[in-house]
Amino acid sequence: MVKYAIVFGGVSFEHEISIVSAIALKDVLKYELDFIFIDTNRDFYHIDVKDMKSKYFSSGDYKKADKLNLKQGGFYKKAFMGEKKVEFDIVINLVHGGDGEDGKLAGIFEFFGVKFIGPRVEASVFSFNKLYTKLYAKEVGVKVVDYEVLRDRETSLKMDFPVIIKPSRLGSSIGVSIVRSKEELEYALDVAYEFDNEIVVEPFIEGVKEYNLAGGFGKDFIFSIVEEPQKSEFLDFEKKYMDFSRTEQVLKADIDESLKLKMQEEFKKIYANLFKGAIIRCDFFVIDGEVYLNEINPIPGSYANYLFEDFNKVVDEVSSNLPRARVINIEYSYINSIVKAKGK
Amino acid sequence: MVKYAIVFGGVSFEHEISIVSAIALKDVLKYELDFIFIDTNRDFYHIDVKDMKSKYFSSGDYKKADKLNLKQGGFYKKAFMGEKKVEFDIVINLVHGGDGEDGKLAGIFEFFGVKFIGPRVEASVFSFNKLYTKLYAKEVGVKVVDYEVLRDRETSLKMDFPVIIKPSRLGSSIGVSIVRSKEELEYALDVAYEFDNEIVVEPFIEGVKEYNLAGGFGKDFIFSIVEEPQKSEFLDFEKKYMDFSRTEQVLKADIDESLKLKMQEEFKKIYANLFKGAIIRCDFFVIDGEVYLNEINPIPGSYANYLFEDFNKVVDEVSSNLPRARVINIEYSYINSIVKAKGK
Repeated sequence: MVKYAIVFGGVSFEHEISIVSAIALKDVLKYELDFIFIDTNRDFYHIDVKDMKSKYFSSGDYKKADKLNLKQGGFYKKAFMGEKKVEFDIVINLVHGGDGEDGKLAGIFEFFGVKFIGPRVEASVFSFNKLYTKLYAKEVGVKVVDYEVLRDRETSLKMDFPVIIKPSRLGSSIGVSIVRSKEELEYALDVAYEFDNEIVVEPFIEGVKEYNLAGGFGKDFIFSIVEEPQKSEFLDFEKKYMDFSRTEQVLKADIDESLKLKMQEEFKKIYANLFKGAIIRCDFFVIDGEVYLNEINPIPGSYANYLFEDFNKVVDEVSSNLPRARVINIEYSYINSIVKAKGK
Repeated sequence: MVKYAIVFGGVSFEHEISIVSAIALKDVLKYELDFIFIDTNRDFYHIDVKDMKSKYFSSGDYKKADKLNLKQGGFYKKAFMGEKKVEFDIVINLVHGGDGEDGKLAGIFEFFGVKFIGPRVEASVFSFNKLYTKLYAKEVGVKVVDYEVLRDRETSLKMDFPVIIKPSRLGSSIGVSIVRSKEELEYALDVAYEFDNEIVVEPFIEGVKEYNLAGGFGKDFIFSIVEEPQKSEFLDFEKKYMDFSRTEQVLKADIDESLKLKMQEEFKKIYANLFKGAIIRCDFFVIDGEVYLNEINPIPGSYANYLFEDFNKVVDEVSSNLPRARVINIEYSYINSIVKAKGK
């Protein structure tokens, strides 16, 4: 049986969400699990399953756990004689936001030869940054809503109100505002610029239909049910946050089969060349019967497990089809030929 | 005086180029230097300056050097009592191609809190992948030549011959071919698919003018001279490779001031929001007086030092203006409020 290590925490505005997310997955996953926590100093700790309670982290008690070092091949802890490897097969990257979704951990796991479920470096960059998500979606033929980009405290906008203002590189609706007039704009931008120096502005479409579809790729695509998220105006941080501790199935969106299939087609275009190895959630808008990509969440809260019929099977299938690194043979043929030519 | 550590090698088709590049920079840089080699197992070695000769690496002698571990804050080696930190201020990322230019090392240095000169994660992804370079260039208003993308052994092409075929994710012209007929296409694609499953195809423009401009950002933009690279048909791997050991100034391209300024403007658009902290080289085409971006080289061979009037000053200025990570305060306020609400 495959043994997984859930890596969570990280230096991110979603650090706490990640903890809650990991606690939720502990009960959902029917595998033997290791837990590796990244604290706010970016030190790694090996957490005992019995300590997987939110207070253990907020209180600082986690510092009593074993510290880990990352080396070629995996995580190591100090032992009586030298060091001991933490034995697991595959990491599940559950670090939401910075570190986990911005490509840092992907780069680290690839470099150190740690197999993992989660977005790779390129996939991270295109999903973490909302502007880049749009460039990518357009390239693969998926519609996105119009947008304008503001940078470096710039505040002049061409677009008509109402608009929705989003820091480019954050998830979970942090720093997001709906702005209905020029008067509200300045404050909303101030808030957004707190989180990023790049802001994506979109027209705010009153009452737009929003649907979430999660999925992965194993032998073939595996899709979740389509969910219609509950929202007041839009999901703010606290609402989304509470959502992450959900472990129960939610109700399917009341949509017809053709719309569901259309969303699955758009999901496939997004996922195909970039997201192998990851379980992602695409958030779509439906406007006049057309499907638009809103956001890609490459590490959704608790991996959106509650949207899948059999989440353990999804993890199984994705982990048996992880992307492989290309083998690069380095034989020093160029250097040898130079050395030879120089006669030394 | 700032102390630099040059990190070179890495698992990449350009591993050997990186070694030659590091040896060349040893003599160019007037700073106290440390050398950290990444071997083909991705182990780190602390190389003595006196051993910086290509044969030391090709022969495997480097394995006698001290092995290093990467931990929060930097590189450590075993010492009599515990471990000892390798003391330097800033890394110069000199790993060409995979590992160095694909975002892995950028993610690693950012995660482990190591200051470095080189492209950040997003910048790496957009420069390493030739398709993504085009998406980015178009977004910032820089012209690129037309292209088609082939994937997964696909061979049918819409474009007319002659074309140039490039694996998406490699530098130094590896796997690149000019194809003049349908008969040549299959073989050229076979070669390219050896290196990547994504191929970018462009029209091959006979006799197109090509110019290189390197630069960085310190207090303001610092530009190199504009170089017109010597080429037979295009620079192949061996020619580019030999180029990397150059340490002397080359001759300026014979172009008028207005074209030079135009290239500098295009360089600024490319560099501005993405490449802070890096010294990059943009390779441009000039067609009918218009400037087109061909490629971005985010870690050019020997940092293209020979194109700058005073390369040490460039390094100085870029390193005194490295991008800073946003401070993220994690105060466990959400978890604390939940714990409180639950009364435990």
